[in-house]
Amino acid sequence: MKSTGRNRVAEAVHQRRGLVNDAICERLPIEHPERLYEASRYLLDAGGKRLRPTVFLLTAEALTGVEPTSDDYRKFGPEEIDIMSGAVSVEVIQSFTLIHDDIMDDDDLRRGVPAVHREYDLDTAILAGDTLYSKAFECMLDTGAPASRSVQALDELATTCTEICEGQSLDVEFEQRGDVSTSEYLEMVELKTAVLYAASASIPAILLGAETETIEALHDYGLDVGTAFQIQDDLLDLTIPSEKLGKQRGSDLVEGKRTLISLHAREQGVDVDSLVSTESVEAVSESEIDEAVERLEAVGSIEYARNVARDLISEGKDRLSVLPESEARLVLEDIADFLIEREY
Amino acid sequence: MKSTGRNRVAEAVHQRRGLVNDAICERLPIEHPERLYEASRYLLDAGGKRLRPTVFLLTAEALTGVEPTSDDYRKFGPEEIDIMSGAVSVEVIQSFTLIHDDIMDDDDLRRGVPAVHREYDLDTAILAGDTLYSKAFECMLDTGAPASRSVQALDELATTCTEICEGQSLDVEFEQRGDVSTSEYLEMVELKTAVLYAASASIPAILLGAETETIEALHDYGLDVGTAFQIQDDLLDLTIPSEKLGKQRGSDLVEGKRTLISLHAREQGVDVDSLVSTESVEAVSESEIDEAVERLEAVGSIEYARNVARDLISEGKDRLSVLPESEARLVLEDIADFLIEREY
Repeated sequence: MKSTGRNRVAEAVHQRRGLVNDAICERLPIEHPERLYEASRYLLDAGGKRLRPTVFLLTAEALTGVEPTSDDYRKFGPEEIDIMSGAVSVEVIQSFTLIHDDIMDDDDLRRGVPAVHREYDLDTAILAGDTLYSKAFECMLDTGAPASRSVQALDELATTCTEICEGQSLDVEFEQRGDVSTSEYLEMVELKTAVLYAASASIPAILLGAETETIEALHDYGLDVGTAFQIQDDLLDLTIPSEKLGKQRGSDLVEGKRTLISLHAREQGVDVDSLVSTESVEAVSESEIDEAVERLEAVGSIEYARNVARDLISEGKDRLSVLPESEARLVLEDIADFLIEREY
Repeated sequence: MKSTGRNRVAEAVHQRRGLVNDAICERLPIEHPERLYEASRYLLDAGGKRLRPTVFLLTAEALTGVEPTSDDYRKFGPEEIDIMSGAVSVEVIQSFTLIHDDIMDDDDLRRGVPAVHREYDLDTAILAGDTLYSKAFECMLDTGAPASRSVQALDELATTCTEICEGQSLDVEFEQRGDVSTSEYLEMVELKTAVLYAASASIPAILLGAETETIEALHDYGLDVGTAFQIQDDLLDLTIPSEKLGKQRGSDLVEGKRTLISLHAREQGVDVDSLVSTESVEAVSESEIDEAVERLEAVGSIEYARNVARDLISEGKDRLSVLPESEARLVLEDIADFLIEREY
């Protein structure tokens, strides 16, 4: 990826983030009961790149040939569809899943602030997630698209949410199991993470009345880049220095977290559980991590994960050929590259 | 309510329960990942009267003049709409809210079996609720109704879910507050409990293409009877002998739970927190409860709650005049009466 591509992604995200943030505030005002709505907004207000809504808006632009950010996202295209309301919907779903996941993983921090169940309490966090869930559906119902398309968009959103739950359930289950295969892992990642990218890329096509073939190709683009995104997360944990990563490098290994890399190594006969013997992230030494990473490199597991991610991105970009050539399509390609080249 | 009315309700519920149960099994098969779907079905399989789906089906019958249970609920009326899928949807929402509420209230038992977070664990219970949430939307999307009506039905369902969260949030908040008024309490009950009855009575009208006036009247019928239903719950705790109640009479008073009765008494100047001084349900004596109930009777609080419930039921029944006369409408009237005359 050339630096022009990287800049294009940064600019595209930057240009849309403010608009998305404004729309979130409008769609989720702090109203009665205040504590519930404050908790629902807490994580959304803490930041985030808004990558999924950006993909949503860019896809709409690429489909219609509208110049990036030149049109009013709330009255988008000749049919004046509120594409922004759909973009907010996927971000709100993302936020709901993070709030509930943090409870399940007992994570204390998210986006640099306390997790919602820490800042508030368990009850409020469960309820905040539940509120965002229905609010996301309300947003998706409110695009002003023709009814038959709205029904299809809602169907895609509901199926996506079911799959995210299935993926999270598998993730929780895998923590207890020693015999998870790489293909099971990839299925879990597709369900837990990639389907929301698939929804973000395909729902705008549904709302704008695109052909089934286009909708499906965009859906698959989302699956590919979303899966690669998660694999890159797994790779970053091993390949980026701790200072840059903002947390101990190799913490997934210390904590015994299953990743595509460790599962591949296990399939090569490596006893991954004893790669790092130190049991706490605080106590582990860089040299112990270095040795573990060398071992993973030696059996080809890091290269394997890199190749899987690379192939997915290449495949995902190819799928964008259903879209007419445009600046927006270029950015969607750049976003695919960015997802596996990012270092954070 | 005459015994014929009571019998009619029992029969109506009995006739439909088996059909609703079959449809639930079909809509929520135990599929991969099994543990998630088993947990999602656990509470649904544990029983329940299926009162909300029964209201849903009866309203559809009353609107179309179809003889009760004579038609195929999956191809209902001349447009062959799958009314059963909508009826399952509201029951699934009810089940999702119970699973999450039991976590928040730290309740151990529900419908005579362990709560889902006890039978499984916290993570699985959160996820089971989340899965039912999206499954309910999938069911409501699957009625085969014309798209514009489906959109309106989904909108009603999403709004209902948001309101249930608001109501539950107020309920949690009220436990910490000493100054809750009867009108705040009634608002909470409307949001937490009554709106799902309103959805159960109005969504079939939406799906069948009824007039706005009819939809709204049925919605208000649901609000009225749903609110009265909760007030009756509050009354039962004080007025039914422990043996019959299946738990200690007056346990709401012992546990300091806010009810319409205790809040009314507080507004009359009664120090409700000291009505019962024993702090555990196990240790309280019947005579202490008797005295507390006498005091609540003396200030008119029990009579007040009875009157509020009675007025709501009377108002709710009147609203059914938008429906043509039919056997199904009679049963909907009987259900209203049943909700405040039931002793369980």
